Amino acid sequence: MSKTDLRPALSRMLPYTPGEQPPPGKFIKLNTNENPYPPPPSVVSAIRDAASGPLNRYPDPTASLFRRAAAEVLGLPGPDWILAGNGSDEILTILVRGFVGEGQKLRLPYPSYILYRTLADIQGASWEQIPFLDGWHLPAMFGEGGNDLRLVLLPNPNSPSGTVVPAEQIEQLAATLPCPLVVDEAYVDFADFNCLDLVRRHDNILVTRTLSKSYGLAGIRFGFLVAQPSLVAKLSNIKDSYNCDYLATVAATAAIRSQDWLKDVVTKMNATRSRMQSQLTDMGFNVTPSHANFVWCQHPSGRHADLHQFLKKQQVLIRYMDFPDWGDGLRISVGTDQQSDACMMMIERFLQSL
Amino acid sequence: MSKTDLRPALSRMLPYTPGEQPPPGKFIKLNTNENPYPPPPSVVSAIRDAASGPLNRYPDPTASLFRRAAAEVLGLPGPDWILAGNGSDEILTILVRGFVGEGQKLRLPYPSYILYRTLADIQGASWEQIPFLDGWHLPAMFGEGGNDLRLVLLPNPNSPSGTVVPAEQIEQLAATLPCPLVVDEAYVDFADFNCLDLVRRHDNILVTRTLSKSYGLAGIRFGFLVAQPSLVAKLSNIKDSYNCDYLATVAATAAIRSQDWLKDVVTKMNATRSRMQSQLTDMGFNVTPSHANFVWCQHPSGRHADLHQFLKKQQVLIRYMDFPDWGDGLRISVGTDQQSDACMMMIERFLQSL
Repeated sequence: MSKTDLRPALSRMLPYTPGEQPPPGKFIKLNTNENPYPPPPSVVSAIRDAASGPLNRYPDPTASLFRRAAAEVLGLPGPDWILAGNGSDEILTILVRGFVGEGQKLRLPYPSYILYRTLADIQGASWEQIPFLDGWHLPAMFGEGGNDLRLVLLPNPNSPSGTVVPAEQIEQLAATLPCPLVVDEAYVDFADFNCLDLVRRHDNILVTRTLSKSYGLAGIRFGFLVAQPSLVAKLSNIKDSYNCDYLATVAATAAIRSQDWLKDVVTKMNATRSRMQSQLTDMGFNVTPSHANFVWCQHPSGRHADLHQFLKKQQVLIRYMDFPDWGDGLRISVGTDQQSDACMMMIERFLQSL
Repeated sequence: MSKTDLRPALSRMLPYTPGEQPPPGKFIKLNTNENPYPPPPSVVSAIRDAASGPLNRYPDPTASLFRRAAAEVLGLPGPDWILAGNGSDEILTILVRGFVGEGQKLRLPYPSYILYRTLADIQGASWEQIPFLDGWHLPAMFGEGGNDLRLVLLPNPNSPSGTVVPAEQIEQLAATLPCPLVVDEAYVDFADFNCLDLVRRHDNILVTRTLSKSYGLAGIRFGFLVAQPSLVAKLSNIKDSYNCDYLATVAATAAIRSQDWLKDVVTKMNATRSRMQSQLTDMGFNVTPSHANFVWCQHPSGRHADLHQFLKKQQVLIRYMDFPDWGDGLRISVGTDQQSDACMMMIERFLQSL
């Protein structure tokens, strides 16, 4: 044993690998579900103004400015229902640290967001994957108790599928589960419903949100949790004292107040999504109808990995995903119409070469 | 047991309380060791430019722009010696998560930075405080091994004292310790030496830095670790994928390149510190000679808490600190000459009223 060995749990873990982030401008980037459009203009001007603000002073430890705005916009009873963080990644880390001890268990559906497993690994906890049924339905056993089960994570809409579990089922799951059920709503602005109302009715339903996707702010790190106030208070003891950057808080506040902008961008992106789905179907793909800003598709040829490589050579990045014991496929983010068309053209060219 | 109970270790812990952060402008703020001066002008213009940058794209996961600049400026062999984080708070969290498991132990000197204890508590670990000897010397036992000792944290300069442990002793401690020795150099730019050279010679000496103090950037969250590359690589698996905000990275890069600005500001603040130390001594305080941007002082009257309250009523915030089994005193941050003089005048007024 050396003096600088990490905890044994960490030396065994497989690190999480996010999608590639090449230098800006070189690729059509449809691999990490970013918004292809710049954020609201009010965000840009708010950052410019804040550049000459009190940067030498510690920021508000709880990002009150944002929490007040978000509570108002989202119709929550008050800012004490919100915990702000350095991206929803930090919120997820806080939740896992808060609820899951070494040797305890976290549950997630499969295939889904692999990061949750990494978060369990870092904590020295274990994880259990419950496979989706055909048609991306969630089996009732997702709501069963179990030894040492301390946290259940459900992305809704799910990634990579873009599918949703109905609010009614989420409510049922929470009722039977012995622990918190976190609904990760990273992509919810592209869907038809959300679970904020459920948080008011059930103290073990928690919702996480990010400004990285629909608000076009992946570059500034800002996400938040919506939960009952007593839980928000307890969880905020775990976060770093000043976890939210002043500039990020200013930007996020301007963004959440831009609901007209959001509506326009979502309408535009969902229209592009419909076109993509039709085009992919026309090219013979099995396309899973999406409620998010990406589309999951599989081609009968099974040549997903090759297609991914072909596109990469043409400077188009999409995500190839291979889920052991389940299958592989392609997750393509919704870009602008132009980016999307360029991608579809390249896919067609590849398929014609088969 | 309820469905939303946190881990038992967390329900027992005492949360860390940072210094008060009132709304800007109302107080003379000498309580949280911020820089009284705005950051370098190049930082402000870099943020303005970046406001129209690729905010909709995820940032570089490892803040390479900053790491390249910092390696060059600090004379490190390369960027792979640096791990960047959302403030040095996040770096400290990563270190505790990386090395200390539930039930294992972390060591710190006493009196010192209480946050380290909170980080151990969150992890379900225990902590052990080794008291400084008279004159803020560190006893040899600080370097002894011990059951389950997995991490040792040493702020250098220390807070609240502003004193330093010599580099030679740090080297000796690292040689005898069975685990990493983290030298927290948050205040090192105000001192005469640092321990970066030691990191190159000892794989169990790690240095943390922040841009919150000397660079005047507490508002943007940015800090970093300097350690040997293999350790940086292992620890980076624990951090959130995109822990460094794009705007913060741009700002921090501009700041670290402003070494002339830094030299001027440090010279100015250290001059103010000398004046403060003389003025406090003249008023009868025992003043600990400081190597940081704050001064620790104790008055024979023992009326520290009252003086703190009196100043607060006059809109001057300083830090009253009471360390059980040790004693209490006042930690006053170095402000501008004007702020410092206003504070000294109020202190004099209080003392005259006794």
